[in-house]
This record gives sequence, structure tokens and C-alpha cells, in this order.
Amino acid sequence: MSSPTVLKLGGSVVTDKDAPETVDDERLAALADAVAGHDGPLVVVHGGGSFGHHHASAHGVSRTEGSGDPAAARGIAGAMEDLNRAVVGALADAGAPAVPVHPFSLAARDADGDLSLPAGSVATMLDEGFVPVLHGDVVAHAGEGVTILSGDELVVALAASLGAERVGLCSAVPGVLDADGAVVPRIGAFDEVADALGGSDSTDVTGGMAAKVRELLALDAPAYVFDADAVAEFLAGGEPGTRID
Amino acid sequence: MSSPTVLKLGGSVVTDKDAPETVDDERLAALADAVAGHDGPLVVVHGGGSFGHHHASAHGVSRTEGSGDPAAARGIAGAMEDLNRAVVGALADAGAPAVPVHPFSLAARDADGDLSLPAGSVATMLDEGFVPVLHGDVVAHAGEGVTILSGDELVVALAASLGAERVGLCSAVPGVLDADGAVVPRIGAFDEVADALGGSDSTDVTGGMAAKVRELLALDAPAYVFDADAVAEFLAGGEPGTRID
Repeated sequence: MSSPTVLKLGGSVVTDKDAPETVDDERLAALADAVAGHDGPLVVVHGGGSFGHHHASAHGVSRTEGSGDPAAARGIAGAMEDLNRAVVGALADAGAPAVPVHPFSLAARDADGDLSLPAGSVATMLDEGFVPVLHGDVVAHAGEGVTILSGDELVVALAASLGAERVGLCSAVPGVLDADGAVVPRIGAFDEVADALGGSDSTDVTGGMAAKVRELLALDAPAYVFDADAVAEFLAGGEPGTRID
Repeated sequence: MSSPTVLKLGGSVVTDKDAPETVDDERLAALADAVAGHDGPLVVVHGGGSFGHHHASAHGVSRTEGSGDPAAARGIAGAMEDLNRAVVGALADAGAPAVPVHPFSLAARDADGDLSLPAGSVATMLDEGFVPVLHGDVVAHAGEGVTILSGDELVVALAASLGAERVGLCSAVPGVLDADGAVVPRIGAFDEVADALGGSDSTDVTGGMAAKVRELLALDAPAYVFDADAVAEFLAGGEPGTRID
């Protein structure tokens, strides 16, 4: 298999975060056109936005705080399947060979919280010309019931196991921003942006960007953070937003 | 993990085979009560019935004949997700800790058609007290696009990889029937029933019972074939229908 591109569509990009379980159809259709125009192996991952987060917080489930309540697992997984069907449907309408992949079916965490995500199904889909579309989900977690598996965590795991060529994160902002709100064009080491991102301590007050940058720096593939307007440029091989490498 | 029981609910048992995409709600509710009363690790697998088979034949997809058309993959997988949601919902309503597992997300076939079905997600769900509910589905198949992954094939693969204690197949008939239509109480070798099942040649004119018996004989665990009235008896440790061992 040639090395795929991994594209994350942030939950805030594909849903209306202010309205529960509402897809941003117009933006999703525009993103789908960009994805359908891509030539080459591609994996898409989308976040939960107004679908997953509501159910996750209602059930008190996070990446580390689990629940053994099957209704919590079904509620979060079901809402994310609904969103996935909307995203896969939009991609299909635009002509992309999109197929659904539900991480709760595939992944597991051990007692240390370490994720296992077998690559065989997604790799075979790619080889057969499909575009697998994964999403943030719950995951069975030894000793915890289920915990949250975020879209960002999936991107990092897939990029590593599939030997991704490039990783793109389409977010609500046009890149990683410095203290003045300007896009940082390139990050080669965490300490270059530690001050702007709130330092290197473990408390992540910036809504996940610091943790995201750290994880992306650890990948072999270059990663880019950009907004919805730059998806086509990224998929065409361009270098929009912030390059993290 | 203690050894689970694997229970297959045939597609003809949970759906009305004569009406497209129609669940047999009454029978499903009765089966769900039996499942909810079970104590101990349990995996449920259901067939496609009037959901999967229609889409599969409309797209010309079988266990060996594949399709590279993403609309075929989405159509079959989507119909089976719908049926799975109905089955998981009925089990949940009855009080079983059921959660959905979609085999298309999890499995793959290599170029020889051999199935790989990583056991980690299902095993972790079992350890956490959930009842994973899988279903017949499509599966990415090297060189073929997608082919069909039957519920029976899943049962055999899961029983082997999870070290199942017992396997039950709830079908439309009360057991494996001899040439006179009577239930054969026990099958220890294929040649005992070869005549009644249409011989040992590769053409399976009996709707799959010959192939099913052969695969079940190869398992370490005893397998039972029975009808919907006997599910509670099987789950309570009884030996209804035909024992294949």
C-alpha cells in the first residue's frame, strides 16, 4: 500500500457546536467536494462536535474517566454513528468512495490506558480504493468500562500504524496561533511554542492544542493545522496553516 | 476472561424474511428476555435476514463474489447497522448490557479469502461486563473490494479466537434434521449426516446446513442447533436440538 494521507475534520468544523446534534450541512458539502477531488489513498477522521460531546458529558465519560453503564456506551456510540452517517453520506454525494469505520468496534484500551487499534480493516479498505471514515467514539477500556477515544488520538494512531505520508487537521482556527493571534508557520520543537500554548505543564488550558502539537511532533509524517478554507490546498499537496514536523 | 458463550440469532429468526427490512418485533422481544436472563460472558451474533440479503443480491455481492462499488458497501453495511440497532435496542430494553460491534469496521480478508478478526475489542467488552452484538456484514477483501461476511462465519471465528465454552445457533428449524425430518440429537462426525444433508460435495443445496455442520465440528467447543423456543434452555446450560461436537 502506498502511504495514505490522514485528514481530520474537527467536530466544530462539521457540526454546529451551539445546537445539539446538528450537522453544518453547507460547510460539510464544501469539505466533501474538496475530499472527493483528492487523488490517492486517504483516511478521514472526524470529531464529535455537538453530537458526541453532549452525550459524553451527560454520562460523565472522558478519555480517562470511564463508565460501565451500557446505556452510556450505546448513547455516545449511537450519536457518533449518526454523525458518521451524515459525514459519509455527504462525502458519497460529492463522489468520494467513502465507507464507515466505527472505532468502538475496532479498538480497545488496556489497564494502562494504552490504545490498540488493529490496522488490517482500514489498510485493506485503502488498498481496495475506499476512503475509510472514522470518528471520535467510546472504546472498551480494561477496568474502566468505556472511555472516550478522541479524533485526535485516532489520527495519531492511524498515522503511525499506516505509515501516513501527510497528516492534516482541519480545525476552527487557521493554524497554531502565537500569543498575538498570528499563525505560526512552522513548529519543529515544542519549546518554540510552549509560551504561546500555555507552557509545557500537563494542564492543558488551551483546549487541546498543546497536547495536539506534542503528539503531532512525535509522528514521522509532517502534520498541518489549518481551517476549512484550506482543505483543498492541503489535499493538493500545499502547506497551509502551521506545519508541525 | 472466562470462556464466553457465543449465541447466533439467525436472520430468519429476528426478521420477517418475506417483507424487506422488517424486524419481527414480537419474536425479538421474546429472544431478548431470554438473553437478558443469562448470567456470564455472552457474545451475540445475528444474521441479515430481510435486511442484508436484499442489498447483497441487488449489488451482486456474496462471500466469494466481491464489489469495488462503495455504494454497494455502504448499502449493505448501512442496512445491517439498522438491523443491529433494532437488535441491540431490543436487548437493552430487556435489560441486557448489549453494545454494537460492526464487523466491517473490524475484519478483513486477504487475497486467499482468509478472514482476520482481531479479538481485542470484543474480549475487552466481555471483560467489562458488556454483551457485544455482532452481525453479518460486508468485509474489505484484498483484490475483491468487499465480500459478504456471514453470521455463521463470525460465530466460528469468534468461538475460536475467544475460546468459547459453548456455541448456540438459533435457527428457523429445531435442529439438524435427518432425511425423515426428525431432529438428529447428536453429530460427532460429518459422515453420520452426510446423506441427510445432501452429501459432502461442495455444492451446498441445503441452504448452508452442511457447511455449517462441517465448520462447527472443527471447533473445540460443543455447538447446538435449535429454534427460537429453545434459546432460554440453551442459555441455562441445557442441550436442546442437535449437539455437534
